[in-house]
Amino acid sequence: MTKEIMEAVNSQLFGVWFLIGAALVFWMQAGFAMVETGFTRAKNSGNILMKNLMDFCIGCPMFILIGFSLLLGEDLAGFIGRPGFDIFTHYAEFDWSGFVFNLVFCATTATIVSGAMAERTKFFSYCVYSAIISALIYPIEAHWIWGGGWLAQMGFHDYAGSTAIHMVGGICALIGAAIVGPRLGKFVKDPAGKVKKVNAFPGHNLPLGCLGVFILWLGWYGFNGAAATTVDEMASIFVTTTIAPSVATVVCMIFTWAKYGKPDISMCLNASLAGLVAITAPCDVTDALGAMVIGSVSGVLVVFGVWLLDHVLHIDDPVGAVAVHCLSGIWGTIAVGLFATETAPAFVTAGIEEGLFYGGGLHQLALQMIGLLAVVGWTAVMITLTFLLIRAVFGLRVTEEEEILGLDITEHGLAGSYADFMPVTQIGMGEENLAYVYGGGQGGLGVEVQKAPGQTENAAEAGAAASVFPAAAVKKGPKMTKVDIVMNSSKLEALRNAMLKIGVTGMTVTNVLGYGLQKGHKQYYRGIEMDSQLLPKTQVEIVVSKIPVRTVVETAKKALYTGQIGDGKIFVYDVENVIKIRTGEEGYDALQDEAE
Amino acid sequence: MTKEIMEAVNSQLFGVWFLIGAALVFWMQAGFAMVETGFTRAKNSGNILMKNLMDFCIGCPMFILIGFSLLLGEDLAGFIGRPGFDIFTHYAEFDWSGFVFNLVFCATTATIVSGAMAERTKFFSYCVYSAIISALIYPIEAHWIWGGGWLAQMGFHDYAGSTAIHMVGGICALIGAAIVGPRLGKFVKDPAGKVKKVNAFPGHNLPLGCLGVFILWLGWYGFNGAAATTVDEMASIFVTTTIAPSVATVVCMIFTWAKYGKPDISMCLNASLAGLVAITAPCDVTDALGAMVIGSVSGVLVVFGVWLLDHVLHIDDPVGAVAVHCLSGIWGTIAVGLFATETAPAFVTAGIEEGLFYGGGLHQLALQMIGLLAVVGWTAVMITLTFLLIRAVFGLRVTEEEEILGLDITEHGLAGSYADFMPVTQIGMGEENLAYVYGGGQGGLGVEVQKAPGQTENAAEAGAAASVFPAAAVKKGPKMTKVDIVMNSSKLEALRNAMLKIGVTGMTVTNVLGYGLQKGHKQYYRGIEMDSQLLPKTQVEIVVSKIPVRTVVETAKKALYTGQIGDGKIFVYDVENVIKIRTGEEGYDALQDEAE
Amino acid sequence: MTKEIMEAVNSQLFGVWFLIGAALVFWMQAGFAMVETGFTRAKNSGNILMKNLMDFCIGCPMFILIGFSLLLGEDLAGFIGRPGFDIFTHYAEFDWSGFVFNLVFCATTATIVSGAMAERTKFFSYCVYSAIISALIYPIEAHWIWGGGWLAQMGFHDYAGSTAIHMVGGICALIGAAIVGPRLGKFVKDPAGKVKKVNAFPGHNLPLGCLGVFILWLGWYGFNGAAATTVDEMASIFVTTTIAPSVATVVCMIFTWAKYGKPDISMCLNASLAGLVAITAPCDVTDALGAMVIGSVSGVLVVFGVWLLDHVLHIDDPVGAVAVHCLSGIWGTIAVGLFATETAPAFVTAGIEEGLFYGGGLHQLALQMIGLLAVVGWTAVMITLTFLLIRAVFGLRVTEEEEILGLDITEHGLAGSYADFMPVTQIGMGEENLAYVYGGGQGGLGVEVQKAPGQTENAAEAGAAASVFPAAAVKKGPKMTKVDIVMNSSKLEALRNAMLKIGVTGMTVTNVLGYGLQKGHKQYYRGIEMDSQLLPKTQVEIVVSKIPVRTVVETAKKALYTGQIGDGKIFVYDVENVIKIRTGEEGYDALQDEAE
Repeated sequence: MTKEIMEAVNSQLFGVWFLIGAALVFWMQAGFAMVETGFTRAKNSGNILMKNLMDFCIGCPMFILIGFSLLLGEDLAGFIGRPGFDIFTHYAEFDWSGFVFNLVFCATTATIVSGAMAERTKFFSYCVYSAIISALIYPIEAHWIWGGGWLAQMGFHDYAGSTAIHMVGGICALIGAAIVGPRLGKFVKDPAGKVKKVNAFPGHNLPLGCLGVFILWLGWYGFNGAAATTVDEMASIFVTTTIAPSVATVVCMIFTWAKYGKPDISMCLNASLAGLVAITAPCDVTDALGAMVIGSVSGVLVVFGVWLLDHVLHIDDPVGAVAVHCLSGIWGTIAVGLFATETAPAFVTAGIEEGLFYGGGLHQLALQMIGLLAVVGWTAVMITLTFLLIRAVFGLRVTEEEEILGLDITEHGLAGSYADFMPVTQIGMGEENLAYVYGGGQGGLGVEVQKAPGQTENAAEAGAAASVFPAAAVKKGPKMTKVDIVMNSSKLEALRNAMLKIGVTGMTVTNVLGYGLQKGHKQYYRGIEMDSQLLPKTQVEIVVSKIPVRTVVETAKKALYTGQIGDGKIFVYDVENVIKIRTGEEGYDALQDEAE
Repeated sequence: MTKEIMEAVNSQLFGVWFLIGAALVFWMQAGFAMVETGFTRAKNSGNILMKNLMDFCIGCPMFILIGFSLLLGEDLAGFIGRPGFDIFTHYAEFDWSGFVFNLVFCATTATIVSGAMAERTKFFSYCVYSAIISALIYPIEAHWIWGGGWLAQMGFHDYAGSTAIHMVGGICALIGAAIVGPRLGKFVKDPAGKVKKVNAFPGHNLPLGCLGVFILWLGWYGFNGAAATTVDEMASIFVTTTIAPSVATVVCMIFTWAKYGKPDISMCLNASLAGLVAITAPCDVTDALGAMVIGSVSGVLVVFGVWLLDHVLHIDDPVGAVAVHCLSGIWGTIAVGLFATETAPAFVTAGIEEGLFYGGGLHQLALQMIGLLAVVGWTAVMITLTFLLIRAVFGLRVTEEEEILGLDITEHGLAGSYADFMPVTQIGMGEENLAYVYGGGQGGLGVEVQKAPGQTENAAEAGAAASVFPAAAVKKGPKMTKVDIVMNSSKLEALRNAMLKIGVTGMTVTNVLGYGLQKGHKQYYRGIEMDSQLLPKTQVEIVVSKIPVRTVVETAKKALYTGQIGDGKIFVYDVENVIKIRTGEEGYDALQDEAE
Repeated sequence: MTKEIMEAVNSQLFGVWFLIGAALVFWMQAGFAMVETGFTRAKNSGNILMKNLMDFCIGCPMFILIGFSLLLGEDLAGFIGRPGFDIFTHYAEFDWSGFVFNLVFCATTATIVSGAMAERTKFFSYCVYSAIISALIYPIEAHWIWGGGWLAQMGFHDYAGSTAIHMVGGICALIGAAIVGPRLGKFVKDPAGKVKKVNAFPGHNLPLGCLGVFILWLGWYGFNGAAATTVDEMASIFVTTTIAPSVATVVCMIFTWAKYGKPDISMCLNASLAGLVAITAPCDVTDALGAMVIGSVSGVLVVFGVWLLDHVLHIDDPVGAVAVHCLSGIWGTIAVGLFATETAPAFVTAGIEEGLFYGGGLHQLALQMIGLLAVVGWTAVMITLTFLLIRAVFGLRVTEEEEILGLDITEHGLAGSYADFMPVTQIGMGEENLAYVYGGGQGGLGVEVQKAPGQTENAAEAGAAASVFPAAAVKKGPKMTKVDIVMNSSKLEALRNAMLKIGVTGMTVTNVLGYGLQKGHKQYYRGIEMDSQLLPKTQVEIVVSKIPVRTVVETAKKALYTGQIGDGKIFVYDVENVIKIRTGEEGYDALQDEAE
């Protein structure tokens, strides 16, 4: 009787822990939201937060209506669960815990994709594909693995979802990022269409991203541990789930330090996640040594993955989702076949064979490969169809202008997610001539010599100032002029390119605020029509001597003209003198320089 | 004997879970702090954080000394618990778990209020009313509902506090926000005192607000689930607590998308909370379908509530606390009488009748209405007295100047919660003429034509520059002048209004730093006297031609003069030319425009 | 049999809770990361996050290889545990739970130090000393207390680590901060080397710091509660762990309000932590009253500690780690000997005597003092040796230039942790003349009177403008000139000091962006070579009349010259007039002022 009692107790105890674990997995949604927001640009942060919120919220009804029974319903031919609505018709006997737990897992899969496609995917299309992942793509492959489907019957082992969740999310991310295309300016191509330069877009809020990683790590103790049914199993899972990410991070730190000269912070944060992803499948069946090796490999794999996408595949994944979830998801699945050992307390329950490195031969490894390939195939086909269909019907990507302005304002009417802070003017980097070198002064080699009379000459005539301001203020020589342009911030790149063409290579840019009513499309914030009284503008100062002021003015007019209210104004001022600090040159000479 | 053992085990197991749940409810304090900070302005963020911290910290001793025994002491006539100090006198037999759990619940009630009254309530007065809520208002009504009081005896059902916590907090928030009055500039009135315009003050840190929502949602699994006594109950509660906010958020997204043209992020974040509030009372006695309906309604209710306060009641609730907690709190309480069903595993324990929509008739609904009205009445009377008393004795609201400067500096001597970031200059919007249209240029229709000689004329005389700078630099015509004002940032609105009156409608504003010692009142940061070496200043550039420079200067002097160190300086420069990009007009003409 | 069953159940139940508690303690890493980042400057935030991440990740393998067996291995002479590798060799019988729990505790110790030494410690050296703390210093003293060592045998009581964790971390922090020396500009010394001024460096992100405190507080329920073995013990621990920080925070609020005139936010956040640290040792053996007293004392102690380090010891601890962890760690340890009471449910299990204030005499107090002194001695000696060794071999501190530029860019090649925000130009405050008073105008008392003719004179000649711009634009008098310097931001302090020496006391500083390629050392972000196209620059405007423009220009050239690309440019403009708002003075007179 004692045994029965203990079983009853255990079922109660681990039933409670299962639900606590599910809450921890829910918490990972916050982690994804913070990581993806922190590692992208401020102008899209509201949009990314909203996407992370909505994939859970939309996923929930989709999972109720379709996904849950496909996953856990009575097995049909090993392929899907029997569709049904027990949650409505038989609530009293419903598997509440199973529903909650599988829902939060499902939402994790969907949310991985948002990071890789961030900053240029239409919000509506996001909602659609996210719903399809939650309703169909994830539940069916998860049925194979966890719902009694054919992979489960075969002996494929993926304890907490290296394959079922992370690799699936990562494959969707990879294909999505490839289909939606890179962000403007990510890859600079030469005329032949070959990528000649890869640009980095640093994340706008590293502390937020780091917080997200800590949230995810905490949540992972629920993610990996929730399904444990004895204290020993749970404890051993906690050990492996702690060791793998720690070692992955250390290895990544050393690797980036050696390779790039300095320990890369954001890559190390990714490495922690990579280690967690990799240990997810084998967390219950490997030991401390296995976890160390698994973590080490994933710590290098994440650096390789980021490099592969950036420099070989030229696929733009802003947050490294593919490197983290896809690659380490694959690695973790394989690792079961390499590092499973009978010394792990949950090994017996798992009902699998030991891994290759622990003397178990190739059998389990082969099973892992079969499962992997099957799920890769299913996911790749389904998600490709999904994205192509969405692209054809709704469009997948925002317009170029929307992308430059940012998705917060264009998709949600939100002027900014950080209303009280002065933003740094962004340069969209979508142009060919990005590789030009911009100087801090003025280009060209002037020959015209003009006299700049102005007030200083009069000052000299007045006979008083000359001795006090001998050279600086009474500099004779070609006239120098400051052209001050107050303009629409989004036109900065166009202006700079136009100025380059007439030989102006240096300019000073200031973020200012202009008064004015933005007319046209109405924006609402919480139901209140917004009229911006202080509009962010950009002020550009250019000082020229050789290049005619008229040329600068006409070029600026052409570059900035849209015919809309808000095109801006140009102010022209006299300059008495210019001194270049490094060379000591003054006046005209100080402006004839290269990059400063 | 097995049954006895299982009961003993259960009491142990759910005793541990009860405490874990309490820790999760404590965690909601962080959620409230982040939501309220993120959705308000940066200049008050330290103050809001401090209020959220202190309502818990002050609430704790108040609850020890007064609140706890009023809530859980031996019932006296159904109205209050017997006051006592068992926590000090009988610690060995004290109900430690009950104390911790009820304390964190109590603190939640108090903290709801801070958001609605944010950005203008005196910190000291906040401490006082927060203490009164924790000591008296909450414990007594909670005794009625949970402490064996008259509502409990009657059969009123509020499982986790839609009424006891959220509606009470929401009523206090509503009355508090009404009594303290709106933030400066929130509502613009016409001369008859009628509100003619509602302004939005966007939150300063959306990611923080979103994080807060995720924190609250996580904490809510403890909030709703902690009192469960079987795994089935707990699991079913997790199901309803997941479905309601998800569906609420989806419905709100669709609703705002349809109504305002775009899916509103901050409203959707509020909707998640509204769904959670609404499911709080019926979470144990309804099913998945009930949760979906309850959530759907609260998703619309939150949009309605924000609209109602803004556009009908003209009560300023910066974070939507009333819409979320009061309205959905009421709705959730009523929902028990509509959606309670015997299929919910905790239905039997709850000892109530089924809801109207599940065939249970009107009985439970009537009970819910009685409880609701009783608690509304109690709370409204008590909190009104509290606020009126505080207003009379200490004052409830900071001065207008303090509000404009921000509560961080005025209430806590903290120069800023984000020391290393450049703030955007704020315009307090408290003036009548806010509805004016500000242009980017200069208003008025000039007739005086002046010749602007200056250096360009001399340049022409010098005979060299003319051909090089044909029009831009040698523009003949009325003199144009730039007036550059470096000033105290808090005076920007005053300056703008004064400039409007003399016909200046356009200006460029830059945030700069001026050197100087802020004299006068000493500020301490962590016990160190602060001397700001780099003071934030605002630089305003105005270019005029028709309007006399002297008029601009004298008007600025009048608007900015206080006689204090730091009033600022005005610099006057010559302008050679101005070009308006949209029209191509130059010189004097370029300045004669409307809004640009 | 029932008893046996209940024991088995309890061991299971609290085995699960033990692991949940460990996860909560892991979560405290996020809390430390957020607190330390929020309370320091933006330019070092990536570095601080990385340090917090790495102390856990490096600590893990160190604890596996060395620390764990030193702590929990078979006791050798009461001093250390027997070194061993059971985690590799006997994984099947390994104490998984003990490993995870002690690892997260160990990491807490190491992470405390990073805050006190923030903003100037070399990252590599940080990794080294952090590893040594995790491998040797912590495990050995923790073995004394918790591993069956001599202090445990003697009856020393430190339930969750006021001594073993917090005081040890605090001692390391104190000695580390002393050896590494203060941040540049923290203490201003007179020529005799005496500190004449203490400067405050406000934290750059208070909401993040506040979030960190809430995270830590939540985690502390695991930290203090995880080792409980009955519900009563756990519940009572939750009570004391809630009361002490609440009361500490209230007391600190009142104390700073009285002492400094306003309630100090960041100090109150520290006080919450101090209360938590102090209750850590006695949380299981004291009661509510004891917790209140213990909290009260620590709320004052933290203010005293910050004052002591700043004003007496002149040790620079940016986040208050010593005041929080060292002082309250000591106090909490002593408090066991004062407030232990048999009414606490875990008192019997603790096997100690009641405290002095509860009639238990001096015995326990004496034991506590012995333990305290022993651990202080061990830690102080070991950590001093560690730091001196590291300083000799690798160097402990970054260079002055690296410190001014910030550790994000110099240690990690990260241009900024907040890429899209405009930073406020920092002034490193390392110079003697910091105490100077900077005015908003121009110093000196000029005698030269010059006529400033310029275009305004011509305007008069033109006969049209004179009446329109009577005084402002046609001001006769000494010529006034604006010198506009666009420069490297890191040179601002040097420029200001140089300007002071020639009598310029006022300037306006604007953050601008300059175009240009930063040449020289390559920086990588996630493996991509960074070329900054928009470089942050600082623009300084100085208007002079008496001081010769040539002097200003030559002084600026000297101060800013490095010979490197990027030294900047100086522009000189004519000024028509200057008006000082406060006094109404114009022209030359408006510039002859003191601090404005």
